[in-house]
Amino acid sequence: MSDTLAPFTTMVDLFDGRLDPERETAQRTLADLEGYFQGSSLSRSEVVYRVYGIPVPETNSEVACSTTVLEAGDIEGEYYMTKGHFHVERDRAEIYVGLSGEGRLVMATEDGRHAVEPMRRGTVNYIPGGWAHRSVNVGAEPLVFFAAYIGDAGHDYATIERRGFPVLVTRGVEGPRVIDNPSYGV
Amino acid sequence: MSDTLAPFTTMVDLFDGRLDPERETAQRTLADLEGYFQGSSLSRSEVVYRVYGIPVPETNSEVACSTTVLEAGDIEGEYYMTKGHFHVERDRAEIYVGLSGEGRLVMATEDGRHAVEPMRRGTVNYIPGGWAHRSVNVGAEPLVFFAAYIGDAGHDYATIERRGFPVLVTRGVEGPRVIDNPSYGV
Repeated sequence: MSDTLAPFTTMVDLFDGRLDPERETAQRTLADLEGYFQGSSLSRSEVVYRVYGIPVPETNSEVACSTTVLEAGDIEGEYYMTKGHFHVERDRAEIYVGLSGEGRLVMATEDGRHAVEPMRRGTVNYIPGGWAHRSVNVGAEPLVFFAAYIGDAGHDYATIERRGFPVLVTRGVEGPRVIDNPSYGV
Repeated sequence: MSDTLAPFTTMVDLFDGRLDPERETAQRTLADLEGYFQGSSLSRSEVVYRVYGIPVPETNSEVACSTTVLEAGDIEGEYYMTKGHFHVERDRAEIYVGLSGEGRLVMATEDGRHAVEPMRRGTVNYIPGGWAHRSVNVGAEPLVFFAAYIGDAGHDYATIERRGFPVLVTRGVEGPRVIDNPSYGV
């Protein structure tokens, strides 16, 4: 029986997503995202997103969870987004619950299939094993969501950093557009 | 790579918890709960709670999730509650996110330890492996929460049906009370 943690409770603000300032685990600035956008975001210190996580043992008996607050904005029309990743353990699934804002969940398999799903308050997105996932803020307010995943899933950022996703989400005259990524896989 | 499901999105009402009427998986009436309360709830058709689940493959790569709507009420002072269960796979953990209402999460190990945690809008409860869990509505409105757990966790209701939890949550003059369960383990 796994019993390394005792029961506990923390709080999530269902509008702004913060679990608890002390639990913040990651903050990404535009500089951290250099190379992820088609345009240049070099050396800018503006924070694009913050992830607040609840640490649990990294085993497949544990449910890890986090909230993410992704700011609104774009780089030459390409909406602010998370880096996106595969799970190191490729078959591990994940669930997102939208808390506020308006976004798109971009997913892709290693063999190049892709899917784009809506994210907003109340959406529950299922991310199957084998699908890389990135969230994109297409609205004017922060996009906030809760994520739950298998404790040993792990984050493989390198594959996406190298290949990108098959599609991009960009600001169009009539709203967000999903277009082919000219840099995909190169 | 597990790829038996495609990505999909459903909706959760963050106030009333319903994922989607077509996904309802369980409804418990007072008659279904006969024997769980210290008092008698026999043959009453009133619904105590509904669980709306998202079906995923029952493996330890999958995150299963559900929302639960637990009505307000009591049986001779013992608040409406869920049956409560251990996971069949004892070491599987679970996460609850409170969406609305006011509740208590009662947890217990097989060797008789117990814990009682708050549930309300924005609480995130961590239920470690090995801990049975029951939610109790101590408020005047429905208690609504979202749950995420490992896909192969399974539900062992029989152990709780036989032994109960070490403590009960009852209506006191100054609010909810946690008292020893006189019927525990017998």
